[in-house]
Amino acid sequence: QHSESIYKRCICVYRALSGVSEPPRGLVQEKMTDNAVFSQNKVLTIDTMNPNVKNVEYAVRGPIVQRAVQIEKELREGMKKPFTEVIKANIGDAHAMGQQPITFFRQVLALCSYPELLKDNMFPEDAKSRARRILQACGGSSLGAYSASQGIDCVRQDVARYIERRDGGVPCDPDNVYLTSGASDGIVTMLKLLVCGEGASKTGVMISIPQYPLYSAALAELGAVQVNYYLNEEKCWSMDLSELERSLAEARKHCNPKVLCIINPGNPTGQVQSRQCIEDVIRFAAKEHLFLMADEVYQDNVYAEGCQFHSFKKVLFELGPQYSNTVELVSFHSTSKCYMGECGFRGGYMEVINMDPEVKAQLIKLVSVRLCPAVPGQALMDMVVNSPQPGEPSYTTFMKERTATLSLLAEKAKLTEEMLNTVPGITCNPVQGAMYSFPNISLPQKAIKEAKALGQAPDMFYCMKMLEETGICLVPGSGFGQKDGTYHFRMTILPPTDKLKLLLAKVKEFHQKFTRQYS
Amino acid sequence: QHSESIYKRCICVYRALSGVSEPPRGLVQEKMTDNAVFSQNKVLTIDTMNPNVKNVEYAVRGPIVQRAVQIEKELREGMKKPFTEVIKANIGDAHAMGQQPITFFRQVLALCSYPELLKDNMFPEDAKSRARRILQACGGSSLGAYSASQGIDCVRQDVARYIERRDGGVPCDPDNVYLTSGASDGIVTMLKLLVCGEGASKTGVMISIPQYPLYSAALAELGAVQVNYYLNEEKCWSMDLSELERSLAEARKHCNPKVLCIINPGNPTGQVQSRQCIEDVIRFAAKEHLFLMADEVYQDNVYAEGCQFHSFKKVLFELGPQYSNTVELVSFHSTSKCYMGECGFRGGYMEVINMDPEVKAQLIKLVSVRLCPAVPGQALMDMVVNSPQPGEPSYTTFMKERTATLSLLAEKAKLTEEMLNTVPGITCNPVQGAMYSFPNISLPQKAIKEAKALGQAPDMFYCMKMLEETGICLVPGSGFGQKDGTYHFRMTILPPTDKLKLLLAKVKEFHQKFTRQYS
Repeated sequence: QHSESIYKRCICVYRALSGVSEPPRGLVQEKMTDNAVFSQNKVLTIDTMNPNVKNVEYAVRGPIVQRAVQIEKELREGMKKPFTEVIKANIGDAHAMGQQPITFFRQVLALCSYPELLKDNMFPEDAKSRARRILQACGGSSLGAYSASQGIDCVRQDVARYIERRDGGVPCDPDNVYLTSGASDGIVTMLKLLVCGEGASKTGVMISIPQYPLYSAALAELGAVQVNYYLNEEKCWSMDLSELERSLAEARKHCNPKVLCIINPGNPTGQVQSRQCIEDVIRFAAKEHLFLMADEVYQDNVYAEGCQFHSFKKVLFELGPQYSNTVELVSFHSTSKCYMGECGFRGGYMEVINMDPEVKAQLIKLVSVRLCPAVPGQALMDMVVNSPQPGEPSYTTFMKERTATLSLLAEKAKLTEEMLNTVPGITCNPVQGAMYSFPNISLPQKAIKEAKALGQAPDMFYCMKMLEETGICLVPGSGFGQKDGTYHFRMTILPPTDKLKLLLAKVKEFHQKFTRQYS
Repeated sequence: QHSESIYKRCICVYRALSGVSEPPRGLVQEKMTDNAVFSQNKVLTIDTMNPNVKNVEYAVRGPIVQRAVQIEKELREGMKKPFTEVIKANIGDAHAMGQQPITFFRQVLALCSYPELLKDNMFPEDAKSRARRILQACGGSSLGAYSASQGIDCVRQDVARYIERRDGGVPCDPDNVYLTSGASDGIVTMLKLLVCGEGASKTGVMISIPQYPLYSAALAELGAVQVNYYLNEEKCWSMDLSELERSLAEARKHCNPKVLCIINPGNPTGQVQSRQCIEDVIRFAAKEHLFLMADEVYQDNVYAEGCQFHSFKKVLFELGPQYSNTVELVSFHSTSKCYMGECGFRGGYMEVINMDPEVKAQLIKLVSVRLCPAVPGQALMDMVVNSPQPGEPSYTTFMKERTATLSLLAEKAKLTEEMLNTVPGITCNPVQGAMYSFPNISLPQKAIKEAKALGQAPDMFYCMKMLEETGICLVPGSGFGQKDGTYHFRMTILPPTDKLKLLLAKVKEFHQKFTRQYS
């Protein structure tokens, strides 16, 4: 019996590390000799810990990425592999893939970090004046002071003016703007406010499938009900009203659906929703009494001709006061994506519309407990929304850098789509926006069977094999959710063009080999 | 009935904004004319939101601080007051109070933010080599790339070596080190892992009273049971074993106490626990099967003669293998306190000892969902644990700045204690460490009665009155917890010496006037 308990523990560790949900018994029993590590008398064990945390999954940094890190280490240690480097296309981490930061942003950050540099002649005047403005708004003129929990006042004002310009003059009240530690922080905070109840009255949150796994992870942690609505792959991952209706009706049988989340431009699916679609969604939310959460962190990442970013807020206001005065909406933005790619700074904001004033007071209280988002990230967010203007000394360079980055991304979006679609058995929607392609892959029955025997999702089996054989690190579609019986992977379009071409060629070769091997 | 519902809503808003739990009915009814703001048809209202969030309280940024911000605005707008500025002694925010950042830290941060500066001759070589080392460890050599979720490898290695030096050679494995967004982030993450169960099996977490309200806030949010143990004010806020035993026995009647939290040096109470006391606590935790959480963010802030900082880890290892191999301990540190005071960067780390390997895998998964702590804060944490060494060009300046800051804090600790103890009706323990004094204040019965009539805690009434009359912003003891029938306030020792003297003189004057007024 004692050995059975150790066996169960081993299974858990094995699962957490390998992503294989049902490892073969023999394999685990073999590893059990090392059972000294499993103290039988800990306070905190897998059996006594928070079960909601156990239910959390996060594929973007899951087992496949952990294996990739391990392989990198093995390569450094001289282990022989059929490749010389790991190419990571698993995460939207632009700088890690060689994208250069915007010079102006980094100049202002250096000036804010070490204000002695303000005396130096090497920095342009507009960078200096931005830095002075931010420092004046900081306690003791230092990035090292706590800011207001909602974020620095003048940054929130700049965000509000940016939103107004973006939305053609629709007014924005800085009091509705909250600075966050990246968009993830804002999303989790809002869900925290919204989730309550038990059993059939437990809050349901509608998320797209495929989704960005932050959503499912946050819902698992909060113990909320994840309500899936499927994007229409045949229509370039668009949202169907009938599918929203189906999903909602289904959910109402067993929970209390209160929230509808949309990611536009889409992650992992790269679509850009049409204005019509956004209108439909807003009317649906109004009719069905749903709180809208719009994840709009890719708002500058629109590449396809005929596509345009429409903010939920702008469309909401264009629908007139019966909507704009009632529908509760929160929109998220971030310094991590678009042309900035400054993920490491964890900058972001959210704007809440039509939020009950009592709840607002609660929101302010809630964010106060964590004191404030990191101030360098707030400063960076300010530069994004208050970038160099025509006539200012940094304007030309800024625009050149911004345009170059976005044009290159557009090229790589096109390249990725085209090359993937040349592979028999891979079908790929256009990458209209964001930073990802999410192609559909045909897997032979034999491969599916073998994966299942190993307790792995078939596309996890496929991606893991690709990693081992080619050094390419992608994330299986099962980490984002997909229609039963379909298989995908997510790859970013971020690697430098040469490397991206190499990667796509290797994917093609691997897919063909894999198909032959299991046919 | 509809008007009664609006009335209830008004009460809620009033409470959240004023901190008054039972506002007089007349006052609220007066305000109700403005009830158009209360839509009756929101998805998210005070009645439908997460009730755990509603239960959160956080005094350090609570109603009194909100009022202080308002008063500052009124002063700027020219409103006449009996004072010309608000002096904030409510929060340990050193830079906001004029403390200067360490030059070396900021030089490295500027270099990391804008690596072009590495070509410049204006920076010392050791600053440049630190910056190069950090950048090499970043994806794409940029602070803008995501780091590993546990934190940058080389930073965790530096933290481990720092801990080993601090603890006289007790080994530290970098794999046990997790970088965090300030200590708060680490504390909440650990509590999230530990809390589970319902009813009598719900996790109980023992916290000192008085406590830092992050703990009570996090426990409320997680729906855990707060288990109070009282510090002994008569013995300079020390921990009594008998009180721990009482508290635990009491708690076991209605919940499952699993965790014991200690803040040392103490916040808000400023004590430094003796080595003997820490030994006792560890033996107690071992005997009673409790997980230890040691909040050691003030580890360099020790001022009183005869006092010394003893880390829980060092003492644990000195107690021998029967403890060091079994007791589960996590210790927190931060860039926000000590001589650095860099709160705005949200840097920190935690070290976990004897954590079950299965739980560790879960912890890594959990922190992955939020991607990574802000990278500039990680870089700053690295500089703290890898500061200039003898022989390096920045060493002399660094040591001068560090020593000056800590000596000044020691002076102000002494000054605060001495001046407060000259006030009849105020009794104050020595500020042995940390950044706060938590004096006991005698309040006249008449004042207590008047406060209660207003639905306010008597020391909230006192502090609010002090704010209105003198512009001094303190936090009432009730925000941290205290023995029934005793009253306190927390004030930081951070204002510049002149301002601190002025503040203490005003406190004295106010206390005397208040006592006369209500006697």
